Amino acid sequence: MIERKGYKDMEEKKIQIGILGYGNLGRGVELAIKNNPDMELVAIFTRRNTAEIKTVTGAKVVSVSEIEEYQSKIDVMILCGGSKADLPEQGPQYARLFNTVDSFDTHVDIPTYLQQVDAAAKEGNHVSVISSGWDPGLFSINRLYSDCVLPKGNTYTFWGKGVSQGHSDAIRRVEGVAGAVQYSIPKEKAVDSVRRGENPTLSAGDTHIRECYVSVKEGADRERIENEIKTMPYYFKDYETIVHFISEEELRREHSKMPHGGFVIRSGVTGNADDTKQIIEYSLNLESNPEFTSSVLVIYARAVYRLKNNGEVGAKTVFDIAPGMLSMKSRDEIVKELL
Amino acid sequence: MIERKGYKDMEEKKIQIGILGYGNLGRGVELAIKNNPDMELVAIFTRRNTAEIKTVTGAKVVSVSEIEEYQSKIDVMILCGGSKADLPEQGPQYARLFNTVDSFDTHVDIPTYLQQVDAAAKEGNHVSVISSGWDPGLFSINRLYSDCVLPKGNTYTFWGKGVSQGHSDAIRRVEGVAGAVQYSIPKEKAVDSVRRGENPTLSAGDTHIRECYVSVKEGADRERIENEIKTMPYYFKDYETIVHFISEEELRREHSKMPHGGFVIRSGVTGNADDTKQIIEYSLNLESNPEFTSSVLVIYARAVYRLKNNGEVGAKTVFDIAPGMLSMKSRDEIVKELL
Repeated sequence: MIERKGYKDMEEKKIQIGILGYGNLGRGVELAIKNNPDMELVAIFTRRNTAEIKTVTGAKVVSVSEIEEYQSKIDVMILCGGSKADLPEQGPQYARLFNTVDSFDTHVDIPTYLQQVDAAAKEGNHVSVISSGWDPGLFSINRLYSDCVLPKGNTYTFWGKGVSQGHSDAIRRVEGVAGAVQYSIPKEKAVDSVRRGENPTLSAGDTHIRECYVSVKEGADRERIENEIKTMPYYFKDYETIVHFISEEELRREHSKMPHGGFVIRSGVTGNADDTKQIIEYSLNLESNPEFTSSVLVIYARAVYRLKNNGEVGAKTVFDIAPGMLSMKSRDEIVKELL
Repeated sequence: MIERKGYKDMEEKKIQIGILGYGNLGRGVELAIKNNPDMELVAIFTRRNTAEIKTVTGAKVVSVSEIEEYQSKIDVMILCGGSKADLPEQGPQYARLFNTVDSFDTHVDIPTYLQQVDAAAKEGNHVSVISSGWDPGLFSINRLYSDCVLPKGNTYTFWGKGVSQGHSDAIRRVEGVAGAVQYSIPKEKAVDSVRRGENPTLSAGDTHIRECYVSVKEGADRERIENEIKTMPYYFKDYETIVHFISEEELRREHSKMPHGGFVIRSGVTGNADDTKQIIEYSLNLESNPEFTSSVLVIYARAVYRLKNNGEVGAKTVFDIAPGMLSMKSRDEIVKELL
């Protein structure tokens, strides 16, 4: 393991971080901060009864009702709520009060969300990074670089096999559902064709299976629940979706780990006759999706802090942030060690 | 294939590009510009007799002695010389006269080169991006992102199997050598161990074999040549190097294609006990190394042009450039299509 020096040339004090929401992602951020010695966790804010929450590292827990008192104490608030019900409200709301980072991942709604958070951040004179994590996030960055380098080509994104928090969360919001875990599984036939540079035309349904393990509340109508899941726009409607109803106990026992992964492949051509095949592949193999996602959120918190100190304002995406802004090493160090 | 719209919101005219040096890389840039409709190739500059050069696309060829007359006609000059003999002089020299992009790839000399080009660019009020391409370049970017996201871990870079232009070039500069092609070949045992997350400690020699095919001039001393290659610092000294002497005809017939590739793997850990394995892998599978490298150079030419228009000055690396600056699409388009 590499011994890390503290970040030296841009900050004199540690970056003061707040966490809003203490689910899997919030816990991941709490742990990720330990790996970034230029940061300090001030408090975790929750809508729940603070007395009921036991943090992993012993971090302070504060009721969200007191969050405004922390405006001067927190440099960046990391929003750890879900994209379906929490962030559409919280994103703009807290961008007025704090510099923020979030992992808003409803792809189709991102342009609107970006505008809303941008307006709010400008109102509050803050900087926000929206939709960070790995998809959107690192995968998006790789889609963009590849799209630029190989303008003639096709980009394919595959997820899994792994648990999608966004999709599991979406199922849990269906009335009558007690618990749910959704696995995205890439279809091998499609992946192999893409890797061979065949540039297949693939519908959403050709690329992945969505397998759902669901436990229901007593008396819930399984048929209605299954139908609501399978017809849910963006999340399930266009995919081959399999729903298994299992007990809460089995769900906890067999499906509590959250591995994930996936890959982004750009299959393009160069040359005078457009016949030179060039393939770029980016892949993730993750034992814990929330711990990895949160590791990305914290580095964008660093960038937010620096942008704010540079006088920037408004909502940014990962496309707007130079890679060097994310590192706790100095520019000299990254040039010497990593270029 | 995706139909590309011209770049719409930052430029009113096409970016005027010059190419200095017309070898494999120069030819690659000439072709790559065709795939970037927001750019126009003004001229190719050469030290050779212009009458002897036939370009692929019919582009204008101009003697390098006339290059200063083109200062007002060219937005960005792409330097296509080699890192060993050309760029250490050309980099600073032309950064005084033009905005430039290059692919300087002698890793150990990059910090010094960056300083020299930076000073020259500032003198000339220009912007330069140094060391773009894929390594340094896209591989560096991936090393950096991975290093930031997973501070606890190790990064491994493997090259090949493929022809390294830098290494082949280095051999060709040995006295008595007529032609040379060098293949970098990853050692499978090392790669497999890294992918399993075992974090092996690998010396340079553990990771790659360097296989060289060399033709010599009449009467040349093969033993001396082999020894000079094998002891060349940075390029060969620390590796298992195999040298085959073959005829010029065989070299041309069997080793004229320039495929390449490789991968960057970050094997890191997260979690409260540092025991959650997380692996990030970036890989390239290239039928033509120079055509791919040049495709990267041209997108950094776009960024250079924009930075200059934004009032920036000095030498930058790929770490200093936000991904969005590289695209010919608008910010709205990339957010909608790629985030």
